[in-house]
Amino acid sequence: MSVKLTNSEQIHNLLDQYDYFLFDCDGVLWLGDHLLPSVPETLDLLKKLNKKCIFVTNNSTKARDDYLSKFRKLGIEGITKDEVFGSSYASAVYVDKILKLSKDKKVWVLGEEGIEKELKELGYTTVGGSDPLLVEDGVKFNPDHPALSNLDEQVGAVLAGLTFNLNYLKLSLTMQYLLKDNKSIPFIATNIDSTFPSKGKLLIGAGSIIETVSFASGRQPDAVCGKPNQAMMNSIKADNEGLRTNPKRGLMIGDRLNTDMKFGRDGGLDTLLVLTGIETEENVLKLQQDVAPTYYAEKIGDLFEYYKK
Amino acid sequence: MSVKLTNSEQIHNLLDQYDYFLFDCDGVLWLGDHLLPSVPETLDLLKKLNKKCIFVTNNSTKARDDYLSKFRKLGIEGITKDEVFGSSYASAVYVDKILKLSKDKKVWVLGEEGIEKELKELGYTTVGGSDPLLVEDGVKFNPDHPALSNLDEQVGAVLAGLTFNLNYLKLSLTMQYLLKDNKSIPFIATNIDSTFPSKGKLLIGAGSIIETVSFASGRQPDAVCGKPNQAMMNSIKADNEGLRTNPKRGLMIGDRLNTDMKFGRDGGLDTLLVLTGIETEENVLKLQQDVAPTYYAEKIGDLFEYYKK
Repeated sequence: MSVKLTNSEQIHNLLDQYDYFLFDCDGVLWLGDHLLPSVPETLDLLKKLNKKCIFVTNNSTKARDDYLSKFRKLGIEGITKDEVFGSSYASAVYVDKILKLSKDKKVWVLGEEGIEKELKELGYTTVGGSDPLLVEDGVKFNPDHPALSNLDEQVGAVLAGLTFNLNYLKLSLTMQYLLKDNKSIPFIATNIDSTFPSKGKLLIGAGSIIETVSFASGRQPDAVCGKPNQAMMNSIKADNEGLRTNPKRGLMIGDRLNTDMKFGRDGGLDTLLVLTGIETEENVLKLQQDVAPTYYAEKIGDLFEYYKK
Repeated sequence: MSVKLTNSEQIHNLLDQYDYFLFDCDGVLWLGDHLLPSVPETLDLLKKLNKKCIFVTNNSTKARDDYLSKFRKLGIEGITKDEVFGSSYASAVYVDKILKLSKDKKVWVLGEEGIEKELKELGYTTVGGSDPLLVEDGVKFNPDHPALSNLDEQVGAVLAGLTFNLNYLKLSLTMQYLLKDNKSIPFIATNIDSTFPSKGKLLIGAGSIIETVSFASGRQPDAVCGKPNQAMMNSIKADNEGLRTNPKRGLMIGDRLNTDMKFGRDGGLDTLLVLTGIETEENVLKLQQDVAPTYYAEKIGDLFEYYKK
């Protein structure tokens, strides 16, 4: 059964036990644009204790640089790019290191600028994505749109993620590339979260958008790069030797059982669920041992607040 | 094994054997806006022989009146509204006769005017659908859009079908109604064809769009009204006593195995596959006996052309 963090002694033991603290962001550090209590103090404490903090997010609409801006905007200073792992970055790394896609090939993007930026940083050219020509007719669909008859022969991978600026043309074009060349172009998903929390509501997540093009093309993604997939964990371990050799020195902190907690557990880390996101204490207490997080806490700021007591 | 129709004697026997001729439209009578050869002559022949012709389509973007206009535009005269069964009409009938939704309730529509017209004709008020307020921001998503915070409490059913004028707001709103009231609002799909043939390409079909809101809400449609579902067949039989009592006097003609041929077979009718749509002779000859159509032909116009020989 999961242990609830409720006192100073537990926190001191926990801080002795772990060197690597992996954080989900939305629902853990902030809710939308609202910082959660004692978050800067908790991160400062971990830095002072020489702990390695790594931020792991499935939101592919932002690139790592956008996350650094967001941290600064919310008053959290000193985060560096190598501490941030987003599903857009993980997907770009997948295209480069695992697919080993030639740099003269292009990537068709169903998604936003976060994905485009990370791919460009690794030397790739993208098509689709935020191209204004694909939204020139707005929500009206023109079956004679030139993009439908002029598929780009250089496209060597399809990368799909969360897209707010969605229309029928973008979905149908993504489908054309998935069917093209006898369905041989690799199909990568940033993440498959079905929903996306926003202002107290659940909205359509990346996974639900990807379902459309999956069902239409009869193809499942060849790889899913976000949590809980271990591709991102392996990238983190590759950069952090101590975590690779001894994952039990790492603690994954998040607000979702099926992505964050599974991501940590599958990577061999201990896990801490916070109740500031979508899970409730009642649900946590009902979990079977094999899926229960190691710890749970009301909020991440409790690490700082109990430590100081 | 399926019998290929290739001579006059076969056609004369076939015309003796059946009283009811059910036709899929796109891929059988026309391709888009292009009428296929000898179609008016074939339909005239059937009328002269006092055969009952019924037109059965899964395209929910049109209402029955729109189909009558299309028949006239293509030069086919004399078709009446009671001879046309579309998935938009079948869905409206389902809401009325099976769900028995009260007329003071509203129907949330993810779809186009065909659905709205058929529902209105049965006395229902619709929300969503082609409402211009839902596309006022075009493809841009505004998370503060008032529709998201003001769900219509009168909505008593969600009806989803093919939508070209798609955006993230419409999908997210559909999801809100599917989650509302503890997921208790009935969820009806016009049809679940994954793709849609248009100008030599396959585009995103109703089923693929419905997958998005299904996956996001964790709900499958409670009913699918188009082919191959038998709800539409039962409506047709209700209006045609002779077909109801002896389905083997009916022949379902279509271009798709998994919708048209299954629809006919499940209804106890014999089946005729035409090769003017998406199936090939090579595929037909490989089919197992239990899914092979009774007959196949190069085109529907062969009925007229061989009859005259």
